[in-house]
Amino acid sequence: MISFESDYITGAHPKVLQRLIDTNLEVQSGYGLDEYCASAAEKIKAACGCPDAQVQFLAGGTQTNAIVISTMLQEFEGVISAETGHIQAHEAGALEYAGHKILTLPQQQGKLKAEDVRTLLKTFYADESHEHMVYPGMVYISHPTEYGALYSKQELKELADVCYDYSIPLFMDGARLAYGLMSHNTDVTLQDITELCDVFYIGGTKAGALCGEAVVFTHKNIPAHWMNRIKKRGALLAKGRLLGAQFDALFTDGLYFEIGKHAVDLAEKLKSILLQKGYKLYMDSYTNQQFPILDKATLERLRREVAVTLWEWLDKDHAVVRMATTWSTTQEDLDKLEALL
Amino acid sequence: MISFESDYITGAHPKVLQRLIDTNLEVQSGYGLDEYCASAAEKIKAACGCPDAQVQFLAGGTQTNAIVISTMLQEFEGVISAETGHIQAHEAGALEYAGHKILTLPQQQGKLKAEDVRTLLKTFYADESHEHMVYPGMVYISHPTEYGALYSKQELKELADVCYDYSIPLFMDGARLAYGLMSHNTDVTLQDITELCDVFYIGGTKAGALCGEAVVFTHKNIPAHWMNRIKKRGALLAKGRLLGAQFDALFTDGLYFEIGKHAVDLAEKLKSILLQKGYKLYMDSYTNQQFPILDKATLERLRREVAVTLWEWLDKDHAVVRMATTWSTTQEDLDKLEALL
Amino acid sequence: MISFESDYITGAHPKVLQRLIDTNLEVQSGYGLDEYCASAAEKIKAACGCPDAQVQFLAGGTQTNAIVISTMLQEFEGVISAETGHIQAHEAGALEYAGHKILTLPQQQGKLKAEDVRTLLKTFYADESHEHMVYPGMVYISHPTEYGALYSKQELKELADVCYDYSIPLFMDGARLAYGLMSHNTDVTLQDITELCDVFYIGGTKAGALCGEAVVFTHKNIPAHWMNRIKKRGALLAKGRLLGAQFDALFTDGLYFEIGKHAVDLAEKLKSILLQKGYKLYMDSYTNQQFPILDKATLERLRREVAVTLWEWLDKDHAVVRMATTWSTTQEDLDKLEALL
Amino acid sequence: MISFESDYITGAHPKVLQRLIDTNLEVQSGYGLDEYCASAAEKIKAACGCPDAQVQFLAGGTQTNAIVISTMLQEFEGVISAETGHIQAHEAGALEYAGHKILTLPQQQGKLKAEDVRTLLKTFYADESHEHMVYPGMVYISHPTEYGALYSKQELKELADVCYDYSIPLFMDGARLAYGLMSHNTDVTLQDITELCDVFYIGGTKAGALCGEAVVFTHKNIPAHWMNRIKKRGALLAKGRLLGAQFDALFTDGLYFEIGKHAVDLAEKLKSILLQKGYKLYMDSYTNQQFPILDKATLERLRREVAVTLWEWLDKDHAVVRMATTWSTTQEDLDKLEALL
Repeated sequence: MISFESDYITGAHPKVLQRLIDTNLEVQSGYGLDEYCASAAEKIKAACGCPDAQVQFLAGGTQTNAIVISTMLQEFEGVISAETGHIQAHEAGALEYAGHKILTLPQQQGKLKAEDVRTLLKTFYADESHEHMVYPGMVYISHPTEYGALYSKQELKELADVCYDYSIPLFMDGARLAYGLMSHNTDVTLQDITELCDVFYIGGTKAGALCGEAVVFTHKNIPAHWMNRIKKRGALLAKGRLLGAQFDALFTDGLYFEIGKHAVDLAEKLKSILLQKGYKLYMDSYTNQQFPILDKATLERLRREVAVTLWEWLDKDHAVVRMATTWSTTQEDLDKLEALL
Repeated sequence: MISFESDYITGAHPKVLQRLIDTNLEVQSGYGLDEYCASAAEKIKAACGCPDAQVQFLAGGTQTNAIVISTMLQEFEGVISAETGHIQAHEAGALEYAGHKILTLPQQQGKLKAEDVRTLLKTFYADESHEHMVYPGMVYISHPTEYGALYSKQELKELADVCYDYSIPLFMDGARLAYGLMSHNTDVTLQDITELCDVFYIGGTKAGALCGEAVVFTHKNIPAHWMNRIKKRGALLAKGRLLGAQFDALFTDGLYFEIGKHAVDLAEKLKSILLQKGYKLYMDSYTNQQFPILDKATLERLRREVAVTLWEWLDKDHAVVRMATTWSTTQEDLDKLEALL
Repeated sequence: MISFESDYITGAHPKVLQRLIDTNLEVQSGYGLDEYCASAAEKIKAACGCPDAQVQFLAGGTQTNAIVISTMLQEFEGVISAETGHIQAHEAGALEYAGHKILTLPQQQGKLKAEDVRTLLKTFYADESHEHMVYPGMVYISHPTEYGALYSKQELKELADVCYDYSIPLFMDGARLAYGLMSHNTDVTLQDITELCDVFYIGGTKAGALCGEAVVFTHKNIPAHWMNRIKKRGALLAKGRLLGAQFDALFTDGLYFEIGKHAVDLAEKLKSILLQKGYKLYMDSYTNQQFPILDKATLERLRREVAVTLWEWLDKDHAVVRMATTWSTTQEDLDKLEALL
Repeated sequence: MISFESDYITGAHPKVLQRLIDTNLEVQSGYGLDEYCASAAEKIKAACGCPDAQVQFLAGGTQTNAIVISTMLQEFEGVISAETGHIQAHEAGALEYAGHKILTLPQQQGKLKAEDVRTLLKTFYADESHEHMVYPGMVYISHPTEYGALYSKQELKELADVCYDYSIPLFMDGARLAYGLMSHNTDVTLQDITELCDVFYIGGTKAGALCGEAVVFTHKNIPAHWMNRIKKRGALLAKGRLLGAQFDALFTDGLYFEIGKHAVDLAEKLKSILLQKGYKLYMDSYTNQQFPILDKATLERLRREVAVTLWEWLDKDHAVVRMATTWSTTQEDLDKLEALL
């Protein structure tokens, strides 16, 4: 059995795990005040080219989205998102649990258009009854999107411009940022993201860590009493070193980028195999997730030997499946898959 | 200056006010335990043809929607609504404040289609990852809708069938129910609504009361400790008699229906005037709200002498306006308007 | 049957009701944007001697407490209250529903001591682990307290000083403010309260209105987007005129103070009767609530003809009862009671 | 520098870490559906002597408390806790964030008395106005308490009896359960706890894991849709194996108990050293936390070489400090400390 089910099927990248082993016996302060959180934050700031950034670590993606958005929004504000955004579709209502509405817009491959965002904002303020409505207070994007697509630098710039014009922050969900940064088809760097977003996070869970996301506030805009706020939300780990040590490893000698590159390279090979074998792709992805369309019989047969995620049924007989590569995917896995298809 | 701005531009219907005057000096228990709340509940149950119904009074529409929905849903559930539903569009995020997501569907004149609801439910349960999503736990409809449209008895029945099949309640927002019941173009009675909905409310604020909505639970399904729950939400009035006395008047000698008829009759006349004068209607409404399309110049001129609500701009030069009649609208108001147009 | 059960046993003071009658047919804007809300606000600002104050109207006490506190606190803050404070003891957890903790202190007759508040604040900031605790962000007091007691001007000043030193607002729950202001034993005026509190409310429901509380922000410190925030909490009345007109009447020709005086004068007479008849008082109250101690037999006998509130059992055979006067209490009620005792 | 600052100063127990290493490359399902969560649950059920128990894993203590309490309470209920309970004192308002009030009672060494709980419940239901109050819906205890004290089996039984009589669950916070179970002065076993509590958790973070708490529902009383509920609260880890593998190790060959014994044995030695050196103890603890009283000068001197937690100031010159042992504490640490004192 081989697995392309997700990018969280295995444990930590060996170098990440090694850092946990190496530091295990050291006495460190709790609650994220350890040396490794500090060191990881410095390394991330350097990688972002932003010495003034503020970096904080949280355990998982949904937790991070809910915390970043709910601590940065005013209570009368909601967040703009693509209707397929992870916060809207697959977080079990975590944002509404925190009291905030999601204001949805149509999407293309999971991406928002700056023009649509601008229209929403303009229409809101032009509406004579907007005091009865939820204020749009932030823009949420995911990069890569839930469909593996990427914003171009120009697209990000346009979104940042709209946000700037309306004085609301641009927040990027980078749960799979590694795979976006190392895509064969992107002009967006980590520095670009740091410049264009007000806050974003660098996903660890799906890129080689056991758990952990690194939130980067780019304009000294971290909400006051951050530790207290995350404690209130049950997100403060006593042994914060678990997150710090892992990110310290991920940002040593470019490991985070190396992990991204490995998975993206294999995903491109996976795409070639699928195309060669005559499968159609639901969309053209340049990141670590590929979305072939399989007929029902093939799907059933394949699932006996290959774990994949059933994305959605296109019709009664055809389904989109998601196949993901990750740090632990090997050429051997691809060879086996090729033989099976 | 005449006003068709809304159906809450004047105070209470004289008979409602008179009941407040008549009962003012009586000593009554607080918190809705007074004789008038009890009496009004009995009268409403009789009007609904449902002796087992449970009737409770609240002060306003947004409050009622948020309370009914959030006390009937499980915490992991959201509510299905048209994307134009009042709870989604114009309640400032009151439902998200209560921790619940709204699951939106496309609409026609503000109405949901039973088929769309069924598809949403079916798709949800078929989705392998639905444990990561918000459970659809209730269907919210407004009758009349925010656009003045009405469900037919057949349409309601179909919605009720879907809800029954999935064991979720059907909730009707009847903020303007008086105008729906007395429409010239409806086959739906109060008894039908009682039979088909699991819970609904009879709007008072917009139909002759100073404030107040009467919630009707039709299947002994009132949430436990109702008083405590509404107190927790700040909605328990010390002098609950204010609500009870008004509804007692509204449901004496058919006043509620009389108020509805008066406004609907005048709205039909208003529609005739608009059509005769050559105005187009954004949609064909048979309730107390009419939605003519005005060009910018006309709108500006009209607004100097007639209060209306600007609904939305169709394009740069044409706007939809809402004109509402209510218990205090007179033939004289219509005559004046006709002269102005 | 006569009733001293509470100060919300009857409807509105006749002059308040008359204002509703007189203004009933006028066309007014909705949502508190009517002329009467504006006029009432002006009159209240004049009575407070504070032209810069911001005045807003809400429907009831629990609603007002929850809204004022939750909109003025930061999310990481809680509110300091006496352990007998209404928000702590009798509001069904409305403040926790809004996400905030109440930090309780011991009390005397329902009053907080400035010294205790200062100690709590000092201890909090001295605690090395206070980032794991709820920040004290406001002081809540009720005046009169739930036991009918009053702060002296000096005591209020001391509380205001502590609040000033720690830059947190002092909030006074004035649900029964009329009776505090007109007590025979107070040196605190409405102007004093305006000067010393950052926000307070003037209770209407328990002092002659059908419903309504007037919130006074004394330092231009009303939370941004107030209308939106109260809409989100279900507290925005479509016919806000209901609140405006009543307060407009209450603050015309000193009616609010007249109502307070009437009830307090009768309460003093009630106290005299109780003492003459040999009853002990649980505490010495100078406001409209008296708290005699009755033995079980007397209590049972009395309750057949006089409605009172059972406050608490002191022991198996003796109970504290609350007897309240209000605008509609008459000398005749007292005479009847005297005859019964 | 040696550290007795807390029981979360070092990483994972070597055997726990080894399990993470050994399982790192295995492909496992996400979201807690992996083999190790299943295996750990089985082992815990066996250790509890309760094959019907339901076991779930969460990342940290505050998260676990907030989730267990808020998913088991009805919305109109609060939780009874000692005023020193962790949920009340040191969780930044996490429970209020979830909308629930904590109903506090006095404590002794952090313990609740069954009699006090019974009185609270009895008084609540006897109060004629209890519909305006928060329903007591659960009892929360910590074992060991925040002061290192332990309930006797008899005391637990009495608490369980009260809960049974009022049909509310008894919940034990076992963040430091290892040290309670292995105390030299306890008659309470894991099986006893399983029999007497409706739900409790076995703390991992403070007993040898990097993170993780194992929640045990003893009466098939796990809230419906548990995964969805914890996802909504941001607590669902994609790589749930991180928790499962650690608990699988902790419950293999009695490691959890061994860790507890090691720390308790050293804590008893620590106590002996303190007493021999003439220090007074704030209270007599038989678990892994000791609370000596130090004068200011000693405290300052000690802190230069030994990390301890300042618990509270008794007066200007004397402080209570907390000294904790854990799996990584050594005899050498004690020897060094003895030399320093």
